[in-house]
Order: sequence, then C-alpha cells, then structure tokens
Amino acid sequence: MAKPLRQYEPFYHTNRERLQARVTEAYEQFKKTKTFEFPRWLYGEPLGKLIKVEVEDCPNFGDTAFVEMDSARTAFISVDMQIDFCGEKGYVDVMGYDLSQTAAALGPIEKALQAVRGTDIKVIHTREGHDPDLSDAPFNKVLRSKIIGNGVGIGDIPENGLGRLLIRGQKNWDINERVYPIEGEFVVDKAGKGAFGSSTLHMVLKNLGITHIVICGITTDVCVHTIMREANDYGYWCVLMKDGTGATDVGNHQAAIKSIKMQGGVFGNVTDSERFIRAIQTAKLK
Amino acid sequence: MAKPLRQYEPFYHTNRERLQARVTEAYEQFKKTKTFEFPRWLYGEPLGKLIKVEVEDCPNFGDTAFVEMDSARTAFISVDMQIDFCGEKGYVDVMGYDLSQTAAALGPIEKALQAVRGTDIKVIHTREGHDPDLSDAPFNKVLRSKIIGNGVGIGDIPENGLGRLLIRGQKNWDINERVYPIEGEFVVDKAGKGAFGSSTLHMVLKNLGITHIVICGITTDVCVHTIMREANDYGYWCVLMKDGTGATDVGNHQAAIKSIKMQGGVFGNVTDSERFIRAIQTAKLK
Amino acid sequence: MAKPLRQYEPFYHTNRERLQARVTEAYEQFKKTKTFEFPRWLYGEPLGKLIKVEVEDCPNFGDTAFVEMDSARTAFISVDMQIDFCGEKGYVDVMGYDLSQTAAALGPIEKALQAVRGTDIKVIHTREGHDPDLSDAPFNKVLRSKIIGNGVGIGDIPENGLGRLLIRGQKNWDINERVYPIEGEFVVDKAGKGAFGSSTLHMVLKNLGITHIVICGITTDVCVHTIMREANDYGYWCVLMKDGTGATDVGNHQAAIKSIKMQGGVFGNVTDSERFIRAIQTAKLK
Amino acid sequence: MAKPLRQYEPFYHTNRERLQARVTEAYEQFKKTKTFEFPRWLYGEPLGKLIKVEVEDCPNFGDTAFVEMDSARTAFISVDMQIDFCGEKGYVDVMGYDLSQTAAALGPIEKALQAVRGTDIKVIHTREGHDPDLSDAPFNKVLRSKIIGNGVGIGDIPENGLGRLLIRGQKNWDINERVYPIEGEFVVDKAGKGAFGSSTLHMVLKNLGITHIVICGITTDVCVHTIMREANDYGYWCVLMKDGTGATDVGNHQAAIKSIKMQGGVFGNVTDSERFIRAIQTAKLK
Repeated sequence: MAKPLRQYEPFYHTNRERLQARVTEAYEQFKKTKTFEFPRWLYGEPLGKLIKVEVEDCPNFGDTAFVEMDSARTAFISVDMQIDFCGEKGYVDVMGYDLSQTAAALGPIEKALQAVRGTDIKVIHTREGHDPDLSDAPFNKVLRSKIIGNGVGIGDIPENGLGRLLIRGQKNWDINERVYPIEGEFVVDKAGKGAFGSSTLHMVLKNLGITHIVICGITTDVCVHTIMREANDYGYWCVLMKDGTGATDVGNHQAAIKSIKMQGGVFGNVTDSERFIRAIQTAKLK
Repeated sequence: MAKPLRQYEPFYHTNRERLQARVTEAYEQFKKTKTFEFPRWLYGEPLGKLIKVEVEDCPNFGDTAFVEMDSARTAFISVDMQIDFCGEKGYVDVMGYDLSQTAAALGPIEKALQAVRGTDIKVIHTREGHDPDLSDAPFNKVLRSKIIGNGVGIGDIPENGLGRLLIRGQKNWDINERVYPIEGEFVVDKAGKGAFGSSTLHMVLKNLGITHIVICGITTDVCVHTIMREANDYGYWCVLMKDGTGATDVGNHQAAIKSIKMQGGVFGNVTDSERFIRAIQTAKLK
Repeated sequence: MAKPLRQYEPFYHTNRERLQARVTEAYEQFKKTKTFEFPRWLYGEPLGKLIKVEVEDCPNFGDTAFVEMDSARTAFISVDMQIDFCGEKGYVDVMGYDLSQTAAALGPIEKALQAVRGTDIKVIHTREGHDPDLSDAPFNKVLRSKIIGNGVGIGDIPENGLGRLLIRGQKNWDINERVYPIEGEFVVDKAGKGAFGSSTLHMVLKNLGITHIVICGITTDVCVHTIMREANDYGYWCVLMKDGTGATDVGNHQAAIKSIKMQGGVFGNVTDSERFIRAIQTAKLK
Repeated sequence: MAKPLRQYEPFYHTNRERLQARVTEAYEQFKKTKTFEFPRWLYGEPLGKLIKVEVEDCPNFGDTAFVEMDSARTAFISVDMQIDFCGEKGYVDVMGYDLSQTAAALGPIEKALQAVRGTDIKVIHTREGHDPDLSDAPFNKVLRSKIIGNGVGIGDIPENGLGRLLIRGQKNWDINERVYPIEGEFVVDKAGKGAFGSSTLHMVLKNLGITHIVICGITTDVCVHTIMREANDYGYWCVLMKDGTGATDVGNHQAAIKSIKMQGGVFGNVTDSERFIRAIQTAKLK
C-alpha cells in the first residue's frame, strides 16, 4: 500500500449532522410524495407560486417524481437556438449535419415559451458566438471547425451564406425567429460551450435570485449539457425539457438525456414540454 | 421579424485575419499530414520532446489523425480513480451499479502510468469528495444520493462500509492502489463534477505550463467529460484515452466517447492506451 | 473620431424599468431611513431575524447608514487569521513586518465571535496556503517571497521556525488560537489572495444561502479586500468590520478602508466590532 | 488548544524540491542582476524580443529592479478609459468627483500606446458597463449608485447627459478618443470590477499566449487593482504603469500603488510610462 496522501480528518460533525437532518427530512418526504419539495429552510418562502413539474425515470428508470419550484425563482433557459445551430447556411448546416435533429427543438420551445410568457418565470436565451476579432476563440476550436467544414470554419462566410459562422452580429448567429426573445426576456452571450467561467450567466442567475432552472435548446450533448453541469455543480436544481433539445446525432442526444438520470439525477432531472406546460397551467400562474 | 438585439458590428478585421492566417496554414498542413502540429507560433519551441498521438475518427468517423504535443507541457490527468467510483463498498457500488464498468479503466491507466512515469509528462490525479462538514456539497446532490442509495447517501456510512461516502479523508474516497499517485505526481481535490470553478486545477495547469491534456478516469460521461469540456473551452488540447475510462452505463460511456468526435472534435480527440504508449515509446522520452 | 466599436443598442427596456422601479423604491426608503433594507422582493422573507448594522461614511463621508441583514443568511468571514500572517516565526514576521498591525485584529474578532457564536449567523474561516508540493503556487509568487525573505520564502523553514512558510498542514499555517474555529463553523482553504476562482468559497456561500457578508481578518489590503471585491461583483452585500482587520502597513490599511467607502460604497460598507455586536444584541439573536 | 483541523501531511517532496530549485536559481540570479528574468524553463524561448522594464521599490522600498518580458507574450491592458470614468457627464463626474484625477492617466497612456503600437505587444482595452436591461448589474450596485448620485445612478440619464450611465452602447460608456482602440487591438467588455469570473478576459489572455501584463487605466484602486489581483493569483506577471492610472481620491490612488509593492511585490510590480517606453525603445521592437 502506498503511503497516505493529504488527510482530511473527520472533524467537526455539527454541520454535517445539521445538513443531514435536513436531507433525511426531505428524503422521508420524498418517499411519501415522490416530490423534491421546494426547500423553504434554505430559500425561504416562495416569492411566486409553487409549480410542480413531473420528471421521468427518477429516482430509478421507470419511476416518476416531481420537482417543486418557486415560479419567481425559476429560469427557463433556451440555449443557443441560433440559425448557426438549427438553420440553413449556419454552422451546423455547413458541417453537413442533418438539421432536422436540432430544428426539432423549435416546436416544443415555442409552446413552452407561450406558456411561460406572462408569468413570473424568468426567460433567458443564450447565444454562442465569437467576437468579430476572434480573440475569444481558441486556435484549436477555429482550426477544427475549418477542417470539418472543408475550409469553411468559424469566422468564414460559406458560399451563399448569411454571414461569418459563429460570429456575433452576423445574421446566422442570431436566434431563430420562432423562439426569438421578446421584451422582458434576457439574452446572455457566451464564447464557450459552457457559460459560468466566461460570461455573465452566473451573475444574471444570481441577480434574479434563481434557484431552479428548466433548460432546453441545442445541442443537447454539447452546450445544453455543459451549462447544466456547471449550474448543477453550484447547486441549482436543473430540469431538462427533453423535447426542446436536439443534437447532431440521435444516439448522442438520447445518451445525453439518459446520462442526466443516472445516480438518481446526477445532473438534475428530465421532463418534456407537455409536462412542464401542464405544471404551469395547474399552478395558474396567469 | 422581431427587432434586432444587441449588435456586434463586424469591426476590426486585423486580428481575425491574423488568426485565420495561422488557421489556414495549420489547415493546409493538416490536409497533408493529418496532424494537429504543435503550434510553435503560439507556444514557442517545445520544452521537452514532441510526441505524436494517433487519434481516431478525426476529422470524420473512420479517419485517423495525429495530435502533436510537447511532452514537457503535457498533463496526463487521471480523474477520480477512487474506491468510491470503482471499488467495493464505495459510492457507486452502494448505488447498485456494476463495478466492472468503472473498474475496467484500471488496467489501461496502470499501463499508461508505467509508460509516462520517468518522462517529463506531468501526472495529475483528481479526487471528487466533500469536506467532512459537507459545506461544499449542495443540498440537492446529497438528497439525490440518499434517495438513490435507499437511505445511504453522501456522508453516510454503508453497512460494513469503509467510511463515509464521498467524504475527504475516508478510505473509500482514496485512490485505488493500482493507480495510486507516486512521488512527483500531483493530486487535486475537487468538490464538483467539474474542477475549473472551485478547485485549484486551473492554477496547477497554468503553473506547470500545460498546453495539452491526455485525460482518463471515471466516470466517462460525468467527471471526465465535465473537466474535458471546461479545459477545452479555455483552449487546452484534450485527448481522451478511451480504454482508461468507464461509466455506470455502457451506452452512456460509448456516447460520451462518440460525442467528443462530433464536429471534427468538439471537445478534443480520442485515443487509447496502446496508441498513447506507442507515441511515448516512439518519441523515446526515457 | 475613430469608428465605433461593438454596439449595444438600448433595446428591451422592460427589465431595466422593472429593476429600476425596485431601486427607486429602495432609494426613497433609504432617504427616509438611511437603511439598506433587506430586499424581500429578491430574497423573500427572512429566515432568521433581521439585524441592522450601522455603517460609517455612507453614502458620504461623515454620514451614518444601516445595512439590514437576515441573521440566517449572513456569513461572518474571518480571513486568514493564521500564524503566518499575525504570529511569530510566520510568513509576515519573517519578511520583517511589524506584527502588531496584523495582530491587532485578534481582539475585535475574538469579541465578535463571542457575540456571533450561538446565533444562526454562519461563521467561515479562510486559510491561505499551498499544497506541500507547491503545485498551486505560481513561480513568481514563490520567487518574490524568497527575495523579500532574504532566501527564506514560501515552502522554506525559517531558522527556529514552526514549519514551512504558507504550506498547508504546517503549524504556522494554522489559525491563531484566540480566533480558532469551533464545532459548527466552516473552514475554507485557498491558494490565492482571492477565493472565488479556485476554492470552494463560492459554493459554500451558495450552499448556505448567504446574501450578506460581514468580513474581517488579515491583511486588509490584500486577502480581505480581494475576497470582498469578488463577492461584491456577484452582488453579495459586504460589510467590513474594520477593527478586526490589519495590514503590513498602516497607510495601506487605512486607504483600503477608505477605498471601500468611495462611490457610496464601491465594494460595500464599513463598520466596527462594537457596532456589529450591538446590532446582534439589539436583535436578540440568542 | 483546540483540536486540529483538516491535515495536510508534508508528503511528496519531489515537486516542491523541483520548483524550489528553479526558484533558488532565479533568486541567485536576481541577487546579481536585480532582474526577474523571463523563465525559459517554464515558457520556452521568447517568441518576440525580450524587453526589460525597470520597476521601482523592489524588492524593498528605494530599490530598483527589472522585469524581463517577451514582447510577443506581453499584453498592455488599458482598463476602463471610458468617458464614464474620466469624462464630463459620465458616471464619475455625476457622482461629483474631480475628473482631473482620472483624466490624468490619458497623457501617459497615449504616449505608451504610441510606443507599443507597431510592435508585437498585444493591446487590450476593457470597458465596464452593463447590459441595457441591467441583468448583469447587482441590485445593490445600482442602488448605491442612485444614492450617491442623488437619484441619478447606473442606467439613468443625467441632466444634459450623453446617455444612460455605465450602460453598454451609450456614448458615455465608450472609450475616450485620445486612447481609443485602433485596428488590431482587443476590446473586452465586463460587468464587474474584476474580469476573470464573468468576462472573456481570461480566455483572451490564454488565446494570445500572454505571460506578462503591463496594466494601466482607471480607477487605480478599483478596477485596475481588481484585475491585477485576479491575474496575479493565476501567476501572470503584472506591472502597473502608475502614471497611466488615476482614482477618485489621491490618497487611495497612492496607497493602491504602494500596496502592490509590499511583500516584495504582492500583486506584481510598479513602473511608469517613461520607463516602459524606454524599455520598448531599447529592445528595438520596431
């Protein structure tokens, strides 16, 4: 046996016991109600109304559970629904992927937006894109895109294209009209797949007092998953609205959804637009 | 059509053109050599020896390519090879998953470590785990683990267990003996799936001057992928050593690997231990 | 005139107007009460009791104001009260600075801890220090310390010293007995002056539901200020307990305090232990 | 004596000894040459030319030393030289501060830019400002600004003002003409005082391969210092060009400069435009 590394003596039990008492209470409650109740001891009384979203395959595959959220502290995040990812002559199209996969997310998001608009749920749209000078684009990212695009990568204009691929301010970089932001919604621009280390997303969530996130957008396994992972690490309750997502490959899309469900919800939970909309309607938010 | 959002005028082309000239040069070179050459213009001359690792399904599925790295600026990162994730009475075992999936990574990592040790490649081990007071564990993470573990979650001691699950300092939290760190290697502790926002990993990589990362460990779709995504967003060249990884579900494991290969390498590239070891031997690092 | 850079059109006024309505309301209230009231619209009802801490020179020098906080969501952070910074044979002592400056913080912190202990205010201690392998210590930091220490820097053992300077696990790195953590308090280790990018502090604050921070410790202008700046950028309400701080230079200490007060409180506000303790007593937290 | 906290056994000495050998070598060299030589063992051979910038009060007050940097990996960062901070009807002006303090930085930056332009030193400008919807502005920041501005704060338009204070896209938010970015320079927008956690600055520095930073701008004790602290924590070599800075208070300005010099350079070093320009000329970069 190798010699021991850095040690963390099992000291100071008080705080663990305190937290575990809360966990045990919530666990007993979950056994009865199958619900992750809104933890008032942590967040206080709801500021809006409580909504109860049904999530699938939780805690085990085949089971159904519920996540309770405070409407006023819930963010509905629509990730990167840009022409570059789901429209013609955009980045994904130029790489030769089947647009039907990513474009399939449009309908469910459209419906969910209809339900959400007019309530106190906060709507946030993200956009991936680089500064026109490419300063925030790593060399290897640009190079790989040029290779897979047969000479047309990030910052280039494809033949008959709408503009430079994945560049802020270009037509192709903008959000698809069907799910376009309206007055009162938020837009966060980011340069990476993730958003917590180098965009204002974490600030915005904090400024809005968000505790729960319902996330959708494209692509499932890349940007949606990365943001969900980051938010989950900070303790945000994340629920993927699965039919409002899409990827460049069906298998990856499905595995990305399944992966969330492992370990009782390793990155959060999974619902769909029908169940999310039903939860909003049941709570009579408007 | 909705009115336009925040604008980014396509201003200041000089820098884009500068970067794109470098990209075009590397692209032309790639077409000839199928190699992502070590970008001297960016990192300078190698400090160690150049090694050339064969990667699969790049740029397209079925293709073979190479990533050239400077041995002295390459980190071999072994993620979370802890008893909690691949050993009996650990966290994953208690949840009821088949250990053979995660334990399968041990052999290839063991072999790769043999090849890497004694060279100037830097070896970094990470460990996921929480402070004994659970202060760095989000409530929902602990709760979910208790539910899926039927009452035995993070911070609890399973029947006949080795210690508190996923808690720093416990036997089960330590690294499996077969791939245990030795003198001269680095160990980074982290509380989340990712490591960039709340551990010293980014600092360590920077202090060591790392440009390229060969990553392995468990689980493929959770911690390995999250760290790879974070590093990739910052421009690190990441290569997954796929047989040195494992997950709680075979399909998720395979999709996690496939997902990396999309878009010409959306999170980096994929190799295996045999090819990685061959590259080290060919370069005669020791 | 040079041509315009990237544009941000003044679009979507709804959210600005919403926030500004809240701001105006709080502004009118402040004019009447000189109090930054606990913003219930944002955080909800208090979970503990409201305490009202008097702060000085706010909004203008000579004025007195109050910051209202929810005891259960207030963190009392004691920064780096380690022997290395305020004790004999520690890091600061070896560099030749007058210990009386930093040690002066001990008394007020001791008193504040007495008042805080037994209430629902969360106590967090931080410690600056490096892994024994120095992997998380930048080369230039170690070099500068060696130069100013005349050959004895970070990682070295001074003559008749207690251990390696600024290294985790060494006696000199530990917290001064007078303000030593007790059961139920939190300890966060960090490698830098700041704590948000590479320690678990941000996680811990989030897991505890903290909205307000009363900060003290050493040194005023270095670690205390850096953490305060980071927290302030994320919208935490920060109040410096000025007599519980100290620096290696009196002028820098005083300017660090003054600097907080500029612009109506650019990094938060300033109080002292007497006023903080009085606020706790008045609220009858225990 | 309280019981011991988490332990870090002084294990694994190899890496510490390796780093310390480098440090000792550099320390011996420094004693002879008073120069922080460009660490080739870490960064490799220079990509541009070496420049040697004289810095003051290092290691002790009254001493003179030199920082050697690779021109191609040096960033000249001009922080927030916006009308909002140094021009009429801007944010600082509305708060009633004497503009001559912050405007004094213009001349030296102008001269330094003349010297830097046409070389391979990278020029980065930052701008503090908020999204027009204020989503990235914490409530307390906006409130404090409204109070100190007697009803005119962030997002408001002062009487006869140029636009909304500190809002992206407004005239007052733009950079002063005298130090306006030109083709080939970089502009990074940020919402906080710091830039590492919520803007693309860290990415940009990494994409450009930066190791050394010469920093100037306004205000000395707020944004300039915060960015310098963040960069310093990650091991960037930072040098403040002191006459190219300014604050809302002379004493704070001077203390901010002095504070950097403590502990042999706790946040880096201090030079002025004359010395910086001389270093560029001596190295014959153009």
